[in-house]
Amino acid sequence: MGVVVAFEDKEAGKAGIEALVGLTRADMERVNAMILSRTGSDVTMIPEVANHLISSGGKRLRPMLTLATAALCDYAGEGHVKLAASVEFMHTATLLHDDVVDESDMRRGKLAARMVWGNEASVLVGDFLLGQAFKMMVEVGSLRALDILSTAASVIAEGEVMQLAAAKNTETSEDEYLAVIRGKTAELFAAACEVGPVIAAASKAHAAACRSYGLNLGIAFQLVDDALDYGGSAGQLGKNVGDDFREGKITLPVVLSFRRGDETERGFWRRVLQDGDVRDGDLEHAQSLMRRHGAIQDTVERARHYAKMAKDALGLFPASPMKQALDDAVDFCVSRAH
Amino acid sequence: MGVVVAFEDKEAGKAGIEALVGLTRADMERVNAMILSRTGSDVTMIPEVANHLISSGGKRLRPMLTLATAALCDYAGEGHVKLAASVEFMHTATLLHDDVVDESDMRRGKLAARMVWGNEASVLVGDFLLGQAFKMMVEVGSLRALDILSTAASVIAEGEVMQLAAAKNTETSEDEYLAVIRGKTAELFAAACEVGPVIAAASKAHAAACRSYGLNLGIAFQLVDDALDYGGSAGQLGKNVGDDFREGKITLPVVLSFRRGDETERGFWRRVLQDGDVRDGDLEHAQSLMRRHGAIQDTVERARHYAKMAKDALGLFPASPMKQALDDAVDFCVSRAH
Repeated sequence: MGVVVAFEDKEAGKAGIEALVGLTRADMERVNAMILSRTGSDVTMIPEVANHLISSGGKRLRPMLTLATAALCDYAGEGHVKLAASVEFMHTATLLHDDVVDESDMRRGKLAARMVWGNEASVLVGDFLLGQAFKMMVEVGSLRALDILSTAASVIAEGEVMQLAAAKNTETSEDEYLAVIRGKTAELFAAACEVGPVIAAASKAHAAACRSYGLNLGIAFQLVDDALDYGGSAGQLGKNVGDDFREGKITLPVVLSFRRGDETERGFWRRVLQDGDVRDGDLEHAQSLMRRHGAIQDTVERARHYAKMAKDALGLFPASPMKQALDDAVDFCVSRAH
Repeated sequence: MGVVVAFEDKEAGKAGIEALVGLTRADMERVNAMILSRTGSDVTMIPEVANHLISSGGKRLRPMLTLATAALCDYAGEGHVKLAASVEFMHTATLLHDDVVDESDMRRGKLAARMVWGNEASVLVGDFLLGQAFKMMVEVGSLRALDILSTAASVIAEGEVMQLAAAKNTETSEDEYLAVIRGKTAELFAAACEVGPVIAAASKAHAAACRSYGLNLGIAFQLVDDALDYGGSAGQLGKNVGDDFREGKITLPVVLSFRRGDETERGFWRRVLQDGDVRDGDLEHAQSLMRRHGAIQDTVERARHYAKMAKDALGLFPASPMKQALDDAVDFCVSRAH
């Protein structure tokens, strides 16, 4: 399989994620095959654009979570493979659209699709993938799963609009920021983890537990990502340190530094993030302000809170290798910060 | 003033809350006078029932927060007194209705109003106080403040219904529980803290910061309350240890203990909370299970997370005695847990 997952950060999270990868490997191969087959189209640009991004790696954490939570609820059918592929398509569509909105040049260490085929193609292939995602969901035939994933699609779009509205606003509050990442990141994690139990006809409480696991894991995951953007290595990120900074993105390390800083410091944040006037040495200065106010450390600390909630959510399930693997995946997400 | 605030827990939180009490004292005397005058009615049962609860103490933390956040935003008008009184009336109405729903016998160390005058009187006097609250808001004339407080009123009601639906369900997830306390407790704290800045014509960012402060303080406050119910002293609580337990209320210490426990333990929680079959020694057993799973400790730990968010929210404001007092009030709320 040309598109099988390669982890960029073998060293840091090895122990954490390997069990999940191992336990879902057989099903993930079917998901990957499904992904390849469903990007096929007579319009050759579609598979080209889609596969550019799809074949570039990425953890495929979301579809893996759909498979894992279905297995956790003893699912015995076939629907989980298509639902997992749908989840990955929804994610890929979001990335394609995001890069257009953010005017990003790079994605997963390669040129962003929009740099090769243009913005229009990125937007339209994103729409195509969303359409394919819905087709696969319909094929599975679970109205509840359809409801969950279509609701997620609209919540994600809402989160992106919210982020657009909050963009460059250095006065964004932590609650507003949390609402944005709940929408743009955590909702898909939540939906990915909820549809598995739902097609497995798990109890309401078990489905809610998996949803809660995904939601809180998603928040923790995004918080750590945001912290890494100011302190990680390019290898850990699949993008460059300081990308958020250069794009004027308001993430928690900025929210905390801005609120904890004095007027001179706020002037700095306004100049670079609000006015987009970024000069040499500004990233280093931003990092030193973050260190001064413990902003990175506290972002990771906040992530730990959601990580704990994610783990407690799964408490309802009896001990099993899959439960342990999901538990470890939480640690993996947070441990990337080290 | 017969109704001036008396703190039940002088020892524990003394240092934390006194600055806020001191800085709002003059305005709070006007709020207390307003409260007394607005419970007047020719229907003598109304002032009797209302004053039974109103004169029984309670911290009056919510109206104090309205006054404090108005002052933080340099408010110079008169509207804050009526808005603060409205907030306290909304709170009192909720308590009257809650006691009916929960069939509580005691409130703030006295017989609950419903035990003296009956359920009907408690419901109707609650409605009367809500009506008076809206009248006072209208008199202040700020449409935005009206919008905030009337939205809060409906969110609170929604939260209560949610709690009713979740009642006795031991499988309630932490996210569901958080949604309940956001509604029933934190929303009024948030509204109380937002209307001050709004009538002071503060910037959107400052109003959002105060709202965020209130919301997160409210969550932290309720979490600590829930922890104290299993581990505090009657003096700290104004109610008895174990009240939540006997009423079958699902709070975070239970959610965590249930999820972290084994099947025997879950059977215990189901028997006492779901089936309402409470026997001698059950409260002590519940407490020992909570100790075993670190449930009280982690509830307080979760509260600390929201407390930190509350403090960071106020970062936008320049240093001042009022800001410091609001900061200390957060510590007070969490320190009650010791």
